[in-house]
Amino acid sequence: MSEIAGRMAVEIGAHYLKRPGPGRGMLLGGLPGVPPAHVVVMGSGNVGKNSVRAAVGAGARVSVLSIDGDQLRDLEELYAGRVETVLSSPQVNANVVAGADLLIGAVLLAGRKAPVVVTREMVASMGEGAVIVDVAVDQGGCVETTRPTSHVDPIYVEEGVVHYAVPNMPGAVPRTSSLALTGLTLPYILRVANDGLAAAVLADPALRRGVNVYRGHVTSAAVADSLGEPCTPVEELVGDAG
Amino acid sequence: MSEIAGRMAVEIGAHYLKRPGPGRGMLLGGLPGVPPAHVVVMGSGNVGKNSVRAAVGAGARVSVLSIDGDQLRDLEELYAGRVETVLSSPQVNANVVAGADLLIGAVLLAGRKAPVVVTREMVASMGEGAVIVDVAVDQGGCVETTRPTSHVDPIYVEEGVVHYAVPNMPGAVPRTSSLALTGLTLPYILRVANDGLAAAVLADPALRRGVNVYRGHVTSAAVADSLGEPCTPVEELVGDAG
Amino acid sequence: MSEIAGRMAVEIGAHYLKRPGPGRGMLLGGLPGVPPAHVVVMGSGNVGKNSVRAAVGAGARVSVLSIDGDQLRDLEELYAGRVETVLSSPQVNANVVAGADLLIGAVLLAGRKAPVVVTREMVASMGEGAVIVDVAVDQGGCVETTRPTSHVDPIYVEEGVVHYAVPNMPGAVPRTSSLALTGLTLPYILRVANDGLAAAVLADPALRRGVNVYRGHVTSAAVADSLGEPCTPVEELVGDAG
Amino acid sequence: MSEIAGRMAVEIGAHYLKRPGPGRGMLLGGLPGVPPAHVVVMGSGNVGKNSVRAAVGAGARVSVLSIDGDQLRDLEELYAGRVETVLSSPQVNANVVAGADLLIGAVLLAGRKAPVVVTREMVASMGEGAVIVDVAVDQGGCVETTRPTSHVDPIYVEEGVVHYAVPNMPGAVPRTSSLALTGLTLPYILRVANDGLAAAVLADPALRRGVNVYRGHVTSAAVADSLGEPCTPVEELVGDAG
Amino acid sequence: MSEIAGRMAVEIGAHYLKRPGPGRGMLLGGLPGVPPAHVVVMGSGNVGKNSVRAAVGAGARVSVLSIDGDQLRDLEELYAGRVETVLSSPQVNANVVAGADLLIGAVLLAGRKAPVVVTREMVASMGEGAVIVDVAVDQGGCVETTRPTSHVDPIYVEEGVVHYAVPNMPGAVPRTSSLALTGLTLPYILRVANDGLAAAVLADPALRRGVNVYRGHVTSAAVADSLGEPCTPVEELVGDAG
Amino acid sequence: MSEIAGRMAVEIGAHYLKRPGPGRGMLLGGLPGVPPAHVVVMGSGNVGKNSVRAAVGAGARVSVLSIDGDQLRDLEELYAGRVETVLSSPQVNANVVAGADLLIGAVLLAGRKAPVVVTREMVASMGEGAVIVDVAVDQGGCVETTRPTSHVDPIYVEEGVVHYAVPNMPGAVPRTSSLALTGLTLPYILRVANDGLAAAVLADPALRRGVNVYRGHVTSAAVADSLGEPCTPVEELVGDAG
Repeated sequence: MSEIAGRMAVEIGAHYLKRPGPGRGMLLGGLPGVPPAHVVVMGSGNVGKNSVRAAVGAGARVSVLSIDGDQLRDLEELYAGRVETVLSSPQVNANVVAGADLLIGAVLLAGRKAPVVVTREMVASMGEGAVIVDVAVDQGGCVETTRPTSHVDPIYVEEGVVHYAVPNMPGAVPRTSSLALTGLTLPYILRVANDGLAAAVLADPALRRGVNVYRGHVTSAAVADSLGEPCTPVEELVGDAG
Repeated sequence: MSEIAGRMAVEIGAHYLKRPGPGRGMLLGGLPGVPPAHVVVMGSGNVGKNSVRAAVGAGARVSVLSIDGDQLRDLEELYAGRVETVLSSPQVNANVVAGADLLIGAVLLAGRKAPVVVTREMVASMGEGAVIVDVAVDQGGCVETTRPTSHVDPIYVEEGVVHYAVPNMPGAVPRTSSLALTGLTLPYILRVANDGLAAAVLADPALRRGVNVYRGHVTSAAVADSLGEPCTPVEELVGDAG
Repeated sequence: MSEIAGRMAVEIGAHYLKRPGPGRGMLLGGLPGVPPAHVVVMGSGNVGKNSVRAAVGAGARVSVLSIDGDQLRDLEELYAGRVETVLSSPQVNANVVAGADLLIGAVLLAGRKAPVVVTREMVASMGEGAVIVDVAVDQGGCVETTRPTSHVDPIYVEEGVVHYAVPNMPGAVPRTSSLALTGLTLPYILRVANDGLAAAVLADPALRRGVNVYRGHVTSAAVADSLGEPCTPVEELVGDAG
Repeated sequence: MSEIAGRMAVEIGAHYLKRPGPGRGMLLGGLPGVPPAHVVVMGSGNVGKNSVRAAVGAGARVSVLSIDGDQLRDLEELYAGRVETVLSSPQVNANVVAGADLLIGAVLLAGRKAPVVVTREMVASMGEGAVIVDVAVDQGGCVETTRPTSHVDPIYVEEGVVHYAVPNMPGAVPRTSSLALTGLTLPYILRVANDGLAAAVLADPALRRGVNVYRGHVTSAAVADSLGEPCTPVEELVGDAG
Repeated sequence: MSEIAGRMAVEIGAHYLKRPGPGRGMLLGGLPGVPPAHVVVMGSGNVGKNSVRAAVGAGARVSVLSIDGDQLRDLEELYAGRVETVLSSPQVNANVVAGADLLIGAVLLAGRKAPVVVTREMVASMGEGAVIVDVAVDQGGCVETTRPTSHVDPIYVEEGVVHYAVPNMPGAVPRTSSLALTGLTLPYILRVANDGLAAAVLADPALRRGVNVYRGHVTSAAVADSLGEPCTPVEELVGDAG
Repeated sequence: MSEIAGRMAVEIGAHYLKRPGPGRGMLLGGLPGVPPAHVVVMGSGNVGKNSVRAAVGAGARVSVLSIDGDQLRDLEELYAGRVETVLSSPQVNANVVAGADLLIGAVLLAGRKAPVVVTREMVASMGEGAVIVDVAVDQGGCVETTRPTSHVDPIYVEEGVVHYAVPNMPGAVPRTSSLALTGLTLPYILRVANDGLAAAVLADPALRRGVNVYRGHVTSAAVADSLGEPCTPVEELVGDAG
């Protein structure tokens, strides 16, 4: 689902940069003689990578910031000069964000609250009519000024900047999402249906990693950590149940 | 301006394919394992060319139909296998349009009414939740079911298909449009300001071609033809004024 | 060798689509104004990946079907919109195969019989003069209508569709094959020649994995499984021999 | 039709480089660690351009020789380092052709006999099992050792080199050819059918250029020149007929 | 020759950005995590186009400024989002040049003095250790601070910025230059040698355009204009000589 | 740092191929009608990979030689026909190197002396005015004729071939190098500063691998092997220190 969100984020940003509405009135890809919009992607994980790809496809100028040197190397290799890769630090981030036309918040940590990497001050530095799409809103957002919105009333303006922060973005493309989910989860569902949950979980490590709560016990270390609760490995619980 | 409209058409189509709203709920570029949307561009002139480019950038499957073999050859050369080029005829068009997810109407003739190349029946064959963006609406539209809408209330549904048909699409990106217009028209404006309109028109053939009406006389052959009025070459009128 | 077979399969398909002969009389890459042939690659492993690459190079429209979501993701990333990636299931396969001009059977499992993923009914749905190249023929074929042919008499027609199913396809390009084999196997040969087989097998895990039978015992789990025989790890046998 | 022939030439060359048969036993595109075949295209017109494109797609090393600096510039711009462009002269040609794996003869002059740019000596320098596809055979061939063959018995070996020299190559892909011809000629046919030949020829310069003989008079300067006959402009003849 | 100079300019700029020497100590193409240098190309003619291409190849961030909208459109089409195209005006130029790492002066008018489009103030705004390569130095330079240097002592520093301004840059790659010149001029030389100068000039318009002075008369309008001398068409002089 | 050296090597080679100086007087990327220089990269590790990329960007003809089949496969996949990949062996190397215009020595083994893969005889076969950049000079060089030079006097000529062999090449681009190093090492430095060296080394395997000597003991197996000294795992030493 993070691939969907990453790709959608650019389409959504392009939409809200246009008028009527509070956006800047720009075409993401520019024109001959008119430079394109500057898209800044915060994060180089699965969401960020897909946003970079979509922004490149749309013809924007693209910068991607991350603390993960290996992911930046992969992006630099794939896009060979087409994308500016930047090792992230608070000072560097402030410089790159100032004047950005579209910022995509894509800093997510599996099962944890997202860290805030874009401060209110940095938001203000983007200027009137810029747009932020904070994909990390599902996990609290990685932009200080983010608050969740809905598919029906998706945006608000703060510090002059349009914010889009709808949790569960893939809900807007149900046909694509469900085709992807069906294709990918069918093997797991068949396994659980055939073998029972306990046996399936014991036999398949990928399935095991997907279990967050089991019979009232938190079984994911990350979730347990975030909630301040103890974590019990699912293998133990399932073994008991056997 | 046709470059802006051509590029915008794909962003707009991508937007209305998403939910909530009457669209199909698809991501234009698909996902690994889920095929992308099928974008059909009718026309290979300046609007069509720019729509093709934007649709390719967005990762869609793209077909372009035209009666102009040379323009198709250029597109095929530039996109080498990435775009399906099709010589247009009523029978072929019907086959290609059926099942398209997004159709872009880009058949425009300078200063004339656009021909209708997509019939109501073909629109119905696209199916529920498909989207049409008729860029030719400024000249009457090249889709039978097109009627003009506005930036404030831009879409309607007919035959189950979402129609976007806002005249003057570049009005939605005033910053980009005005930068382009300023850059491109400044030399002409300076010439008119310095030399007077009559002298400038006599001296500069490009400027001369841009004059449609002069002192109450129609000076453009295409406009005259459409209105059923006589056409007077601007050189003669300007000469009189000299 | 699977790289050779994968790339050759497209050249061979292109050849048998042409006349004289029972093929459809099409140019794989199409022309400006004439859409290219539709190539469907079943399988995204080493053979499939190389077929996809060759088909893209030839300018065809390309779909690749697989149950391996990760391999599809890699292909989608590499070809960015140029190739349609599809998560495979019996229903989906039938839809995609119908009307294909060239189908490449590339579903192979190391050391096992290939599963049949294309039924006789699906073959018939391709229509007169379509072409199938079943690279999996070395392992029984992944198309129901496949039977082995030879380099001298390589094709037959069944259900109206041309079948090419020559085992050991790389035998047709001996210069390329032997250069590749020499370059890649020389280090192993030198090791065996210098150290003796037993010592070399003990020291080099890659070499060990390549031993299928040793002194009359089946040493490969996959081979043993297919034959219904017991499997003895080669380390034990070699240790005995020491 | 020259586009079809240019693209087909590479597929055909790839086929005859393979065994069984007298070819070299090579894979056009090579393998990781094994360099690809060297394809030399003589001529940069419509045939040559399409052969270059197909050879690049197939992964070959490609050199194109021509006396037309502008066409070479266009190719160099389009393929940016992927193709070696060489200004042709007898000495240079001999160096480049020696050792080529596949040579494509694509030097054609509209309506004239092709000049011989590859001598018997140069053919011999290619070595055993190399392949020549002489697309210019329709106009006498641009290779000294070329003699016409047929779709049924398409090749012969001379100086150790496989020669393919079938006139009317597009006849092997009738489906593609006839779609292209129908699409491109339909407008002319309709015009002639509606207006009569004389009126259509007078009104349409493109149609006029296509008339080689009219009522027993040679009307094409190139054809007249080749045959040593006088040339009468078709306008005059048609005017008489009017 | 302007193609050579355009491509060389980027290699030379890359060299002087490195240490030891007064340059900024940067790698033109950057690294994963470190943005590349910003190359600004002034002019989109033959020199500018080739500089853009070389700078893109080197992995730099590239902006190209020009007053020629058509040339910018071509560049934007070819490089699809990889290059920032900017319609030039004094205000815009100042903004883009400030902070550039490498500026390439490529504003040349055939046979005329180059206009100064980069002022001393703009040079100073680039900052310490930036580099300017003024290809227009052959025609006086398009940068205010340019003065001619030599292949032996090619650079000087002014306003903190390294200037390279060697006239006749192609002299540094004599092998490449002479191959190109021989290939391109041989047909003209043969014609003059065979037919005599007068006849050749009369028969070949391309040759005629290349004559700047003939028997003491200026025959090129541009040269005459620059020198304030009258211009005599070469046809007249040659006709007299006949 | 090997990325910097790999990319710089091509820029440096391009510079020394130009005049004045002992180089061949060639433009690396050639011209329309004039083939580009042939760049041969020995080695496909991090240095080699980056040299290949830069040479491709510069428009050269590129061959890369290596004994690592997997790395060649990756390069072949990434550059699809643009780069010739060759499995290295003494005989093959001699053939490929003969006549190369620029050779980049990029065979480095972590912490060991580089093997000599280019003999004096092979150097001589390159011919007058060719250029060698031996990036492996930091580890003794992989070319027989290499001897270390300095940034101030970087080249010498031997066997007619220009040699560049400056250890610590990244020292020429201090701005780029230090940005990269700061970004990449900051996390490690912070960890050591916060936790103390012993604790940090115990906790972080990446840091542990970077320790070559600790309290007078060699802790890197590769370094110990090269020096003929015993190797003590750093974990033991640190544990003792605890």
